[in-house]
Amino acid sequence: MTEKYTVTFQPDNRQVIVEKGETVLNAANKAGIYVHNICGGDGICGKCRVIIKSGDVNTEPTHFLKREEIQKGYALACTSYVENDLVVEIPAESKLEDEQILVKEGKSISLDVITREFEPSDAGMSPTQRLFRHGPLSTKLHFILPKPSLSDTVSDLERIYREIRRELNVPIMQTGLAVIKKLSQTLRDADFEITATLGKRNGTVEIFMIEPGDTSKHNYGLAIDIGTTTIVVQLVDLISKKVLSSKASTNKQTKYGDDVISRMIYAGEKEGLEHLHDAAVDTINRLVGYAVLETKVNLSDITTVVCAGNTTMAHMALNVDPTYIRKEPYVATTNYFPVIRAAEAGIRINPRGLLSCIPGVSSYVGGDITAGVLASGLFLEDELAILLDVGTNGEVVLGNKEWLVSASCSAGPCFEGAGVKCGMRAAKGAVEKIEIEKNFDISWNTIGNSAPRGICGSGMIDMISEFVDAGIINKAGKFDASLKTDRLRQTDEGLEFVIANANQSGRGQDIVITQADITNILRSKAAIFAGIRTLIIKMGLSFDDVKKFYIAGGFGNSLNIPKAIGIGMLPDLPHERYSFIGNSSLAGAKLALLSYDALKEIEKIAEKMTYIELSADNAFMEEFMAAIFLPHTDSNLFPSLRKP
Amino acid sequence: MTEKYTVTFQPDNRQVIVEKGETVLNAANKAGIYVHNICGGDGICGKCRVIIKSGDVNTEPTHFLKREEIQKGYALACTSYVENDLVVEIPAESKLEDEQILVKEGKSISLDVITREFEPSDAGMSPTQRLFRHGPLSTKLHFILPKPSLSDTVSDLERIYREIRRELNVPIMQTGLAVIKKLSQTLRDADFEITATLGKRNGTVEIFMIEPGDTSKHNYGLAIDIGTTTIVVQLVDLISKKVLSSKASTNKQTKYGDDVISRMIYAGEKEGLEHLHDAAVDTINRLVGYAVLETKVNLSDITTVVCAGNTTMAHMALNVDPTYIRKEPYVATTNYFPVIRAAEAGIRINPRGLLSCIPGVSSYVGGDITAGVLASGLFLEDELAILLDVGTNGEVVLGNKEWLVSASCSAGPCFEGAGVKCGMRAAKGAVEKIEIEKNFDISWNTIGNSAPRGICGSGMIDMISEFVDAGIINKAGKFDASLKTDRLRQTDEGLEFVIANANQSGRGQDIVITQADITNILRSKAAIFAGIRTLIIKMGLSFDDVKKFYIAGGFGNSLNIPKAIGIGMLPDLPHERYSFIGNSSLAGAKLALLSYDALKEIEKIAEKMTYIELSADNAFMEEFMAAIFLPHTDSNLFPSLRKP
Repeated sequence: MTEKYTVTFQPDNRQVIVEKGETVLNAANKAGIYVHNICGGDGICGKCRVIIKSGDVNTEPTHFLKREEIQKGYALACTSYVENDLVVEIPAESKLEDEQILVKEGKSISLDVITREFEPSDAGMSPTQRLFRHGPLSTKLHFILPKPSLSDTVSDLERIYREIRRELNVPIMQTGLAVIKKLSQTLRDADFEITATLGKRNGTVEIFMIEPGDTSKHNYGLAIDIGTTTIVVQLVDLISKKVLSSKASTNKQTKYGDDVISRMIYAGEKEGLEHLHDAAVDTINRLVGYAVLETKVNLSDITTVVCAGNTTMAHMALNVDPTYIRKEPYVATTNYFPVIRAAEAGIRINPRGLLSCIPGVSSYVGGDITAGVLASGLFLEDELAILLDVGTNGEVVLGNKEWLVSASCSAGPCFEGAGVKCGMRAAKGAVEKIEIEKNFDISWNTIGNSAPRGICGSGMIDMISEFVDAGIINKAGKFDASLKTDRLRQTDEGLEFVIANANQSGRGQDIVITQADITNILRSKAAIFAGIRTLIIKMGLSFDDVKKFYIAGGFGNSLNIPKAIGIGMLPDLPHERYSFIGNSSLAGAKLALLSYDALKEIEKIAEKMTYIELSADNAFMEEFMAAIFLPHTDSNLFPSLRKP
Repeated sequence: MTEKYTVTFQPDNRQVIVEKGETVLNAANKAGIYVHNICGGDGICGKCRVIIKSGDVNTEPTHFLKREEIQKGYALACTSYVENDLVVEIPAESKLEDEQILVKEGKSISLDVITREFEPSDAGMSPTQRLFRHGPLSTKLHFILPKPSLSDTVSDLERIYREIRRELNVPIMQTGLAVIKKLSQTLRDADFEITATLGKRNGTVEIFMIEPGDTSKHNYGLAIDIGTTTIVVQLVDLISKKVLSSKASTNKQTKYGDDVISRMIYAGEKEGLEHLHDAAVDTINRLVGYAVLETKVNLSDITTVVCAGNTTMAHMALNVDPTYIRKEPYVATTNYFPVIRAAEAGIRINPRGLLSCIPGVSSYVGGDITAGVLASGLFLEDELAILLDVGTNGEVVLGNKEWLVSASCSAGPCFEGAGVKCGMRAAKGAVEKIEIEKNFDISWNTIGNSAPRGICGSGMIDMISEFVDAGIINKAGKFDASLKTDRLRQTDEGLEFVIANANQSGRGQDIVITQADITNILRSKAAIFAGIRTLIIKMGLSFDDVKKFYIAGGFGNSLNIPKAIGIGMLPDLPHERYSFIGNSSLAGAKLALLSYDALKEIEKIAEKMTYIELSADNAFMEEFMAAIFLPHTDSNLFPSLRKP
């Protein structure tokens, strides 16, 4: 018999009995305690730090823990194996607390509009008030069918069709062979009381599930934003339209490279694409698992998934060869994916449930952006508007209800927390606001007001702006080495500035910004500004024509517009023209999940939008070089910043 | 090393080297020689008789060979294992000669109409001249695509769609994930010269195959008639519209029962349905194999299958539970099957090829009948017409272009050759005409003018008619035991009449008709007549209202209408109102294969047709009892037969 031991988790004092040799991470999962990790237990992210208070673990060597941390009992939960009874403390930085999912509602047409049913009187509304009818991709209908008799001998399937047609106007119905095969027995076992799940697929309505009894009150869907760096999953009640749970984590693909280019290179290696596919799907399944655990929703009641992701992510999620996206002339296999069974992509919901990927425009403007255009309402604007989505890439859409053009500028994943030593996404404990006094005292605000665990995008923008004002860095972004403060210190890797020390932080380590971090942030903000400006110029317009400017992405809600202008990331427009709309990719996916009309609208947006390739564009390169400066080499572009 | 031996087949003198222990049947297959068998080599049909002229075989015991036959060297090829070098003679009765497939062309709108393209001027044609446009379920299009460039960056898939739309007006196109996954590499490996195969499916057009190069000249389909007793496969060139090969054999399901009822009972047993499914699909695959062998067509160039079969056969072919078809109130799981991949049903053509089952009307009027209504042209008639399809069941359709009613009468498989000792289907060597002299000398015609191997349906009708005229049987169908002829003889199983002796026959045995055979034939003809008459009466009509009478089924082309009336199988109508249209199920399937319009028309026919259940109908039972007589107990129904 295998030896079994008790593991006690503090501070919750939850206990679980496990076999010798199980990982502490598994033990925690079994105890229902979430230990933060972004690699899924592969020992490569170093995030699942726990403290072994008593008992012994067998551990694998790791460079994520310092000698003194190990002496204090720190271990990585995923590579520590239970040897005997343990008491394990989960430090604050390793707990999953409610992550702030970046869906800000209310400013745009996006999420509030779906919360009421379509009324005929809505038809006359102004465009920005327009509603999409509630009508999810999959609908459950409960029936007590009339039983067959000698005077009513229609076939089992036609009996169901007949009943559906009494309720709905459905011209073409289809049913897959898998449902038909066992249909006659299912009906009779259920005494002809059944629930049929209908999906909209390939221009027809498909009955993709027949269940005994009445399950119609339980119909759930997933809106998923497959970001290059972060994947966010929302579990949505398709009937009440409520989001029941939102879960986010780093895309496990990051172990194969930080950006889409390096991942596409990896995809070309032997089994590379399969690994990338598995990594994305693993991340999704893990997040779905947490959402289901939290809400007690049955996986088999999740009937539909709508994914929004950039073109590369969509290819990889569906295991489609992305090779030629990165090779000139940058051609995707497709920008329009068929509706498939989620199971075909490996996503674990009801085995017959559907998966729809939101269509994109080009290799570098994907479904995340078309979803964002929908969620922002830009496609309904009378006047010129911009949508800027800052994720791992930065994408810009310019247009109005008449036309739409888009471009992509390689901004890098800084503002999502990657490529910056203490960067993190906008979640609990992330520094989102920073103020620096003359004496270099620092005050900060964190999301959830907890001890700081890292810095998110909006915090970085504040920080750069404050660094300049306090003279900590110069206009080229270099630290002033002569600065008289302990916060600026020399390390093996160059200068770094301490934002919060280990005592203050919720991380157990100092929170610092390195010279390399600043260089990365400057390149990101320059790419964004250059992309916007190049597009404006190419269209023969000027910044002043832009009457609305929607900002989407991983910044966090506290994005400070004046400071973002101040560092030269955003153009110098009147501040009231800006609005921050959060994760618009996710918001668009959720709209499409709840309303087939919205999905169809996204298809129209994708068809209508023109793509302008900047990667080989000299004008863009010049704009980029000119923008790696604070705020910009051409100060005329930022008249409001000139000192009076 | 395994021992190898040479097997020489006579009379062709073809040789093949095989391993010790292989069956003679396999050896024949390898030598490219077809040995007749209907069970597929399971030793249960006894049809694969061969003569071992020299050498030794190991054989399994069989009741199909008499002691003296074994002494002459007879063996069953499928259960005889090669022991050393052999010389094997294939006797005439075991050879596959061109089987006459029951598709008679010309009399109806059926097969000739499809042989030319639709012309706009055809629109004004009279209904019976109406054409279905040539437009097969699957179409191959060859393209040399413009290569992507920085000024033309549409995705690979959209590039193909764009090219297709230049040639065709296709509103909605779909492509499955399997094609998309490898699409980018396929295109580039092929230097952008490809052939796309488009299928009509679920109301949209699906690209279900992309092949490198130009394969557009090779596009084939299968029309399949899945009969309860006989399965017929036609390999059709979808471009030239020519039938390249027709193969028929007994449905291997017959080992589980002769009729649909006994098979449905078997389907309820453990793995019964799977066995039945496998048996049907095995039969089909075997026939396809022969057709492909003969024509050198590549299996992967067969892109579509259209099946017509009765409702039970369709369920079993697709592995759909048929249980409730046989239980009151006789409800099918469905009469309308989705288009699926042929591979899903186990039919081996191109792995992505499509399979469409022709829709039926009810549990006992299936796709074979709706296909027949199309092929006959009955649905276009101005005046009242009847379609009678005599297969294992007998089905009757009554109507015109306004309305259609149908019924099924359990006629049994006599006229297809089953249930009659020396019965056979209408193929080479089948006695199709018989004349009996006063002295009981018999002359016959066989299909192909070869030595008689058995009696087909039309021969049976002739025979019964001649038996009555010659006084061999009385009006109740009983042999006159006092008859002075050697042809009538007593056996352990009762009286039998010798039609041809072993010397004359191509069977190596006497061809006889037993008392039991005659009883079976009388029950069959009575069921047919009763079905027709019951339907006519229920509709408030009389025989005289019927202006056209189409006869379909396994009779053979020489069906003698006066004699069929003479024995009381067909109503006493003017002979010119009758026409024999052969295997109209197969003809309809072929039409649907070559013309999507025709398939859509069949769907309309199925929707329009009313079904009348006779199985529990007292009027039908009374009609049936009255008709088991020659010609009928009520001679007023047959005025033309009354002697003047």
